[in-house]
Amino acid sequence: MEISVSRKAHFNAAHRLHIKEWTDEQNRAFFGTCNNPNYHGHNYDLIVRITGEIDPVSGYLIDMKVLSDLIKREIEDRFDHKNLNLDTEEFKDLNPTAENIAVVIWRLLRPHISPNQQLTITLYETERNFVEYSGK
Amino acid sequence: MEISVSRKAHFNAAHRLHIKEWTDEQNRAFFGTCNNPNYHGHNYDLIVRITGEIDPVSGYLIDMKVLSDLIKREIEDRFDHKNLNLDTEEFKDLNPTAENIAVVIWRLLRPHISPNQQLTITLYETERNFVEYSGK
Amino acid sequence: MEISVSRKAHFNAAHRLHIKEWTDEQNRAFFGTCNNPNYHGHNYDLIVRITGEIDPVSGYLIDMKVLSDLIKREIEDRFDHKNLNLDTEEFKDLNPTAENIAVVIWRLLRPHISPNQQLTITLYETERNFVEYSGK
Amino acid sequence: MEISVSRKAHFNAAHRLHIKEWTDEQNRAFFGTCNNPNYHGHNYDLIVRITGEIDPVSGYLIDMKVLSDLIKREIEDRFDHKNLNLDTEEFKDLNPTAENIAVVIWRLLRPHISPNQQLTITLYETERNFVEYSGK
Amino acid sequence: MEISVSRKAHFNAAHRLHIKEWTDEQNRAFFGTCNNPNYHGHNYDLIVRITGEIDPVSGYLIDMKVLSDLIKREIEDRFDHKNLNLDTEEFKDLNPTAENIAVVIWRLLRPHISPNQQLTITLYETERNFVEYSGK
Amino acid sequence: MEISVSRKAHFNAAHRLHIKEWTDEQNRAFFGTCNNPNYHGHNYDLIVRITGEIDPVSGYLIDMKVLSDLIKREIEDRFDHKNLNLDTEEFKDLNPTAENIAVVIWRLLRPHISPNQQLTITLYETERNFVEYSGK
Repeated sequence: MEISVSRKAHFNAAHRLHIKEWTDEQNRAFFGTCNNPNYHGHNYDLIVRITGEIDPVSGYLIDMKVLSDLIKREIEDRFDHKNLNLDTEEFKDLNPTAENIAVVIWRLLRPHISPNQQLTITLYETERNFVEYSGK
Repeated sequence: MEISVSRKAHFNAAHRLHIKEWTDEQNRAFFGTCNNPNYHGHNYDLIVRITGEIDPVSGYLIDMKVLSDLIKREIEDRFDHKNLNLDTEEFKDLNPTAENIAVVIWRLLRPHISPNQQLTITLYETERNFVEYSGK
Repeated sequence: MEISVSRKAHFNAAHRLHIKEWTDEQNRAFFGTCNNPNYHGHNYDLIVRITGEIDPVSGYLIDMKVLSDLIKREIEDRFDHKNLNLDTEEFKDLNPTAENIAVVIWRLLRPHISPNQQLTITLYETERNFVEYSGK
Repeated sequence: MEISVSRKAHFNAAHRLHIKEWTDEQNRAFFGTCNNPNYHGHNYDLIVRITGEIDPVSGYLIDMKVLSDLIKREIEDRFDHKNLNLDTEEFKDLNPTAENIAVVIWRLLRPHISPNQQLTITLYETERNFVEYSGK
Repeated sequence: MEISVSRKAHFNAAHRLHIKEWTDEQNRAFFGTCNNPNYHGHNYDLIVRITGEIDPVSGYLIDMKVLSDLIKREIEDRFDHKNLNLDTEEFKDLNPTAENIAVVIWRLLRPHISPNQQLTITLYETERNFVEYSGK
Repeated sequence: MEISVSRKAHFNAAHRLHIKEWTDEQNRAFFGTCNNPNYHGHNYDLIVRITGEIDPVSGYLIDMKVLSDLIKREIEDRFDHKNLNLDTEEFKDLNPTAENIAVVIWRLLRPHISPNQQLTITLYETERNFVEYSGK
């Protein structure tokens, strides 16, 4: 029996949308206020979804405590109360759009999830803007 | 890399569920209080999801500002603070069920979305009732 | 020991902001799209708060089932799936602004609440607009 | 035209995660505080999603009132204000994990849904933990 | 400058409404399904509000980390994943209505809050039922 | 008849908690990760509440469109997508704690509200942390 289990997590971070290869003018025109050189920030809500077979003995797909600890260690400790552009290896040379952050989170978690299970990341940048990535 | 980007929007409208080919009796029996001839109304919450490839340069699937402006121009300006049955072309002869409203919104937005991208509409009629349409 | 107990309820209705003594021009200028002669509508979220002494035996201020039934009978049955302007006695000659709806709900419920208890009405017209009335 | 219609419902229940074949020690080690022999409890939020063809006459996939009554009769009346382990047939010998509860709800509802329609169950154990089951 | 600072917390517990001095018949008639002898349960959402003067140097009323740790130690560790009737000293002889739980939480936290500050407890038993207690 | 009308608004900003008169060591010890020299950020949810008399003719306490435009002009345009410490006059020399931001917003809005009306600011820094200020 295939089922999905989801866990919601959270981190607060500053960021700036900016492409180093573009001029300041180009960046401002394309990213608008999101290009503010002094950064702005968000409360990111993160939903991590694991899909796979229910263990017939325990009745678990995955232990929520294990999943929650994994998200804390790999994602929250890395990004919470950070400036994504300045404080992280992942976004030193990658524009921290919601799309790219979701892909990065997927890649950080994927090695820790069983190969028999699928992983989907939903990332809310605001209550009204969110992205979903499944590694396809 | 395929990703989905979603934008939440909102409009308030009056409507009445009613089929012109049916008798008043049939309409009342089938649609109950939703058939009230004087209309009732809802705060409709709308989620527009676009699925496609991330632009490797900008890190965007679609500019949220562009998507948000599109939804405002094509959907909110058309339906917000309107009577769906009386004030709109779309529901002059189409029963404004949540299902039909979602299909109409999909058709209004589809021409403005890149052919390489998929479009999914989620429409909340109330917090407890919602529909999803992907054009299939 | 004084405590407040709150119960959330819900009704969907159509309405139009309009003052009969004003010209159409004045109404349009003042109420904007809320003056649409064909009505628009809302999902109204209602919070009814009762404040008073905890009964030392039962540990209740008020039985939530009793409060919930009262709100259904006096408010939901009266306003749900109705056109406030056309279908109700209360708003035949009273402009159904959120402020006035809250006052009307307070007056409808007040006789059914113990004189030793205070009553506060919070009414959400949308997720972003709400009013609160305590009978003062 | 294929569409999905979802209805949100709710029940409050006590439960305990426990496997009869395991020792108390094993149960405590594996399920932690969820194994409390005196039970703990949750407000379960349930989303029932039906997917199928819109009826071209009524504009309905399914009458929400019918769906809502079905959920009340088959799920809420069975599980609300119950101890899942002690008061229900379904979990007498089945560990009431969120995964297993979702599967049980799917099986209880499936016979009442048209064979042409698909059924998906989303069950929130808390705001942060939820599961989804589609019968695959 | 007087300000209020609020922190939201959470615990999951089983309980049963029951008064030992009453007969089973009386308990069933008064508390209905909440009197289930096998218990039911809730996800309790708790908001702890502190009111007092802003420290002019730090700009804090209270350090949110300190408040959050206090709530965890005094409330969550005591009540989370517990049966309120069986596992706690506080409700051995006190009916665990939402009203009484709010009063108990207020009394548990009050000694740890500065005497110059006021304390208000808001407790959500469900999304639709909640109580507020300020120690008056 | 005294009533309160509330409007919810929103801005995203970066900030850093830091007191210039303290050493780096003191700041780190007191503010923890909130002292990150590279900033972090939040989605701030803002509720502006006006309390006063309902206008007996219009049935309005205040026109929500007017209130919404005022909040946009005075607060959102000033703080949205900004670094509070670097980009604003208000927090050049004032530590941008949630408490201080609420007080600043109150002072910015107060001159634009009728002297007969009271003003209360509720500011959510995260879904779990929020403050309320009424000018007392």
